[in-house]
Amino acid sequence: MKPAKISVLAPGLIGGSVALACSRAFPDSTLFVWSRKQESLAPVQKSLPKAKTGTDVSGAAGSDIVILGAPASALTDLVRSLLPHLTLQTLVTDVASVKTSVEKELAPVLQGRARWIGSHPMAGSEDSGFTAARADLFQGAPVILTPGKSTAPDTVRDVSAFWQALGARVTRLDPEEHDRQIARISHLPHAVAAALVRAAGTSGLPLAGPGYRDTTRVAAGPSAMWAEILLGNRTEILTGLRDLRQGVEQLVTALEKQDRLALAKFLDEAAQIRRNLSGS
Amino acid sequence: MKPAKISVLAPGLIGGSVALACSRAFPDSTLFVWSRKQESLAPVQKSLPKAKTGTDVSGAAGSDIVILGAPASALTDLVRSLLPHLTLQTLVTDVASVKTSVEKELAPVLQGRARWIGSHPMAGSEDSGFTAARADLFQGAPVILTPGKSTAPDTVRDVSAFWQALGARVTRLDPEEHDRQIARISHLPHAVAAALVRAAGTSGLPLAGPGYRDTTRVAAGPSAMWAEILLGNRTEILTGLRDLRQGVEQLVTALEKQDRLALAKFLDEAAQIRRNLSGS
Repeated sequence: MKPAKISVLAPGLIGGSVALACSRAFPDSTLFVWSRKQESLAPVQKSLPKAKTGTDVSGAAGSDIVILGAPASALTDLVRSLLPHLTLQTLVTDVASVKTSVEKELAPVLQGRARWIGSHPMAGSEDSGFTAARADLFQGAPVILTPGKSTAPDTVRDVSAFWQALGARVTRLDPEEHDRQIARISHLPHAVAAALVRAAGTSGLPLAGPGYRDTTRVAAGPSAMWAEILLGNRTEILTGLRDLRQGVEQLVTALEKQDRLALAKFLDEAAQIRRNLSGS
Repeated sequence: MKPAKISVLAPGLIGGSVALACSRAFPDSTLFVWSRKQESLAPVQKSLPKAKTGTDVSGAAGSDIVILGAPASALTDLVRSLLPHLTLQTLVTDVASVKTSVEKELAPVLQGRARWIGSHPMAGSEDSGFTAARADLFQGAPVILTPGKSTAPDTVRDVSAFWQALGARVTRLDPEEHDRQIARISHLPHAVAAALVRAAGTSGLPLAGPGYRDTTRVAAGPSAMWAEILLGNRTEILTGLRDLRQGVEQLVTALEKQDRLALAKFLDEAAQIRRNLSGS
């Protein structure tokens, strides 16, 4: 995978980090960065003086790979405007964290027009925008590719090689299974962290220790983006929230009955699962 | 505050860290470390070769300050056994994270026998025991003193100076207010993290990113200890869990109705609160 030209469309936290990482991993490639707004490109030009930038997607013409950094709701329009500048050989991928709907919308549009596959880099922070982007964001991060029914094996291979060149650990899931698992491991934690911040309130905040800080960190993330993500994967997240609600009921019952054994068992089963996770 | 002799009883994560921090902050003081079990003292002797250790609380005789590292349920028996070795001038404090019940039990026992005040160092990790103890655990950490009705001002002053010497930021709350605030800012996050780990399940764990890791980290903590803490502060925690349950209901309703505005508002209010917290 040695792309002569790479285009990054919509350089937010993830797209911007892709651009920064590409300038290191592929120093000889031409890098084009597109944004809808000219003012969003100023910090990009400052960080990546060799990159070409523009607000016209035609600048992406001739790319070997196009990375779509836009949120899921903006992808279809963006891809339609991009179609005239793609070839059958152009790789196209995105970075949205909901994949079933993206696959359903983009696969038919790109079928026979480019080599499309969805990507979900499991990286980021509670910050957003290009100013939060980091060249090393994908070092050791999981990136999930979500091939659809019409995805060719060489598309999987080439986009895998691209992410691996940025330091990522690439895995594959079909879009539906991706959304099921990510609902539990990413979207549900976000929703619960927000509910926890609200229930914890503000009066004790000056006493907040590392437990509160870590448990609630993601809740500081961009609300509009997360509202879109949660709605995009709502069926799976609702199942997760109902399971959570059941767990909260168990806790309430154990505390009301002062049932130390039930409470310790509840906590211990969680501790066993969490301790099995490597790293911290 | 220059104690000639300091005793630490029950050197777990917190008590052990007090002992380690004291050996740095008060290098000229005599340090005595007591544990119920001889085998728990071996790692203490290794880390603190100059400290005296023993399984008999009489070793604490003549202390200027005694720090009780035992869990709340063990404190009353421990203090009764300690009484013959205290003087009216001895400072006695504990490190338990529930304070109303501790104050209620210990204040009458120590009244007229020593200078007692409860402490709650807001520090720690998901690990436990002396092997997890760190000399710098209290650097910059909040320590809440919980004076009761009979606590003398000089007791507050002297125990404050002790924790400050270990690097802590000392604040004061009465025991009931402490338990109310800590229920929300520490105990509730722990309970919710455990419920979240259980609801998130195990199939997506290989995909866990920093969001899941941070949000659930505390759930790996020692279950028996946390069961005791949650039961010890159950009234306040139940109120918090009911608020959380209400928040989860709001989320479920917004997702079912696909009410983007309500969802974004819910998330945004949480984000505003969390972003107001200094640091990360």
